[in-house]
Amino acid sequence: MILIGKTSVPYLSEAMNDYLKRIERYCRLEVKVLPELRNTKSMPVEVQLQKEAEVLMPVMGNYQEVILLDEKGRELSSEEFAGFIQKKQNSGLRDIAFVVGGPYGFSDGVKLAAAERLSLSRMTFSHQLVRLVFVEQLYRAFTIINGEPYHHA
Amino acid sequence: MILIGKTSVPYLSEAMNDYLKRIERYCRLEVKVLPELRNTKSMPVEVQLQKEAEVLMPVMGNYQEVILLDEKGRELSSEEFAGFIQKKQNSGLRDIAFVVGGPYGFSDGVKLAAAERLSLSRMTFSHQLVRLVFVEQLYRAFTIINGEPYHHA
Repeated sequence: MILIGKTSVPYLSEAMNDYLKRIERYCRLEVKVLPELRNTKSMPVEVQLQKEAEVLMPVMGNYQEVILLDEKGRELSSEEFAGFIQKKQNSGLRDIAFVVGGPYGFSDGVKLAAAERLSLSRMTFSHQLVRLVFVEQLYRAFTIINGEPYHHA
Repeated sequence: MILIGKTSVPYLSEAMNDYLKRIERYCRLEVKVLPELRNTKSMPVEVQLQKEAEVLMPVMGNYQEVILLDEKGRELSSEEFAGFIQKKQNSGLRDIAFVVGGPYGFSDGVKLAAAERLSLSRMTFSHQLVRLVFVEQLYRAFTIINGEPYHHA
């Protein structure tokens, strides 16, 4: 899991850690935090995305497959997302990266380099909140795959 | 805002309070927590929903309009949700309740009594996480309505 920018507030870190710990039972999930851009106020969006891409792209190269979390991506239900994860597991893919971008999403280059874009919602969540929502969905996916009583419980 | 069950973990309470405080600038948002059902393990889902409805329905009667947050509801983007809120404000409606249900959603009776069902995502979020995602969206909506730099910032 690749994040751009540190988790900013303690309560979110705590929440993240709670789910990351639960996920450990099912897979090895590494969290890689890339530095957030600074002094972006007067920076055009395309420049920001380009600069983020320059940091992100080399890291993406370390993975067999990269999936972007992007509000314009494909929307799945939690059950469909569990199916998605299971299929990846069955296909023998081992090194998958999910990337949570910065506030403006991703550059076209990053989008082209990724295998897929998934959306957690049509709504825009704070990119800080996205990471929490995502780990909860990943945990939920594993409990669905394993028929464990978390989903609707 | 009507919640079924207390916010269970301190980090979520803290996160909620952060957004509730920010929302104060724009509207008076009261959080009403209804008791969660106990000993539900062997209780059929319909019975659970019925019992929740018995507690929820009398409270719903205190509001001019009730909107349910339900994953099967209408999906809006954040901008559309901001438009939705602004329309309610412009229509002079004052007492609107948003209801976050329990793990199984709502009984048919509750659905009939509500003005509308909105969905935050096609995915199922923990009903604890839903309340956080919702307050973030409500805060985001007010910043969009007021042209303030939170959305994409």
